[in-house]
Amino acid sequence: MKIAVLGTGMVGVALASKLVSLGHEVTMGSRSAAGEKGKAWRDSVKSEKAQVATFADAATGAELIFNATAGSLSLEVLRSVGAENLKGKVLIDVSNPLDFSGGMPPTLTVCNTDSVGEQIQAAFPETKVIKTLNTVNANLMVDPSGVPGDHTLFLSGNDAEAKKFVAETVLGEWFGWRNVLDLGDITTARGTEMFLPLWVRLWGALGTPSFNIQINKASE
Amino acid sequence: MKIAVLGTGMVGVALASKLVSLGHEVTMGSRSAAGEKGKAWRDSVKSEKAQVATFADAATGAELIFNATAGSLSLEVLRSVGAENLKGKVLIDVSNPLDFSGGMPPTLTVCNTDSVGEQIQAAFPETKVIKTLNTVNANLMVDPSGVPGDHTLFLSGNDAEAKKFVAETVLGEWFGWRNVLDLGDITTARGTEMFLPLWVRLWGALGTPSFNIQINKASE
Repeated sequence: MKIAVLGTGMVGVALASKLVSLGHEVTMGSRSAAGEKGKAWRDSVKSEKAQVATFADAATGAELIFNATAGSLSLEVLRSVGAENLKGKVLIDVSNPLDFSGGMPPTLTVCNTDSVGEQIQAAFPETKVIKTLNTVNANLMVDPSGVPGDHTLFLSGNDAEAKKFVAETVLGEWFGWRNVLDLGDITTARGTEMFLPLWVRLWGALGTPSFNIQINKASE
Repeated sequence: MKIAVLGTGMVGVALASKLVSLGHEVTMGSRSAAGEKGKAWRDSVKSEKAQVATFADAATGAELIFNATAGSLSLEVLRSVGAENLKGKVLIDVSNPLDFSGGMPPTLTVCNTDSVGEQIQAAFPETKVIKTLNTVNANLMVDPSGVPGDHTLFLSGNDAEAKKFVAETVLGEWFGWRNVLDLGDITTARGTEMFLPLWVRLWGALGTPSFNIQINKASE
């Protein structure tokens, strides 16, 4: 499949590398096609299936799009792509609206009454926005076996068919997630984005970002 | 021990009933000592160790205080008690700043750059505020065995001795919690209070409020 991964950070690199290893044609998008981080990734992967381009060119040529840009910049990036080039496509939003300007731990640039997932869906109503993967660190996203137990990944989105494709094919078959919990429509992205303030403190308390939560519920 | 439980809702009732069953002298505090909910609790418990009083009288006579009032009202309630009557005491804050005025699911009245736990500690600097129990439902607070597995309870606070007492004695010996994770100082209450927007959506997706999260981390 032709896939765009927007963003050249740790998350973008982890996603793009995994997708190339699965045989997909992956274009990593960044502000400039000549950006150093994108080229460094392409050179490290050493595959003709790995390409770099601008955000707009990467997304326009793709059938499936991952938004791995910083949540505070995602809307601006996607506007530079344009609604016409995102129309009808599944956009997997893995971003979080983290604001590091005040130091560590970060606060959120949007929360409580809104979320990045909702903002993207509102700005691009003809795009099928699925929020997921934003509650685990980059390596775990594409290798859930890195943490033991029946830990859970969350999914939010308005389009039932797109959610089924993302849950079963992308997360299940491609990345190996066994427990994907559908929280409901895209407004539930507010819940998972607001988990981040706890996540960063768990990172501190546990001494590693390689963890995830397992949901244990009472038997009936 | 002489204990005040401030608040007559489901959480206050669960805590106060458990504490009476353990042999403690428990006074449930509410706006009026003649309040219907407090009296209904006292009458249902049928123990001379169960009393009702105003918030101020309950807290003033207690060695240990639980704040089980609505997070949006907690500061006002505690101000009615007065700093002098809270001085030097351990105050276990189990509240969440849930705002139901816009319907379900609730938003938070304070978050991101502050939390109820921090606000209480700032308003009463000579009180030892410990935030805990706010990430599980009322019944589970006092009976963690209601959910299977090694699920976790979080703890935030500035006073090391008070945290040790709450973790080992109150949560461990009294309530039966085996996994209590110290997140750090009281600012980490922001993390657990901001978990609530995910918690309410998990309640919806799971169909029960009787659940908790287990933290699985990668082996070294």
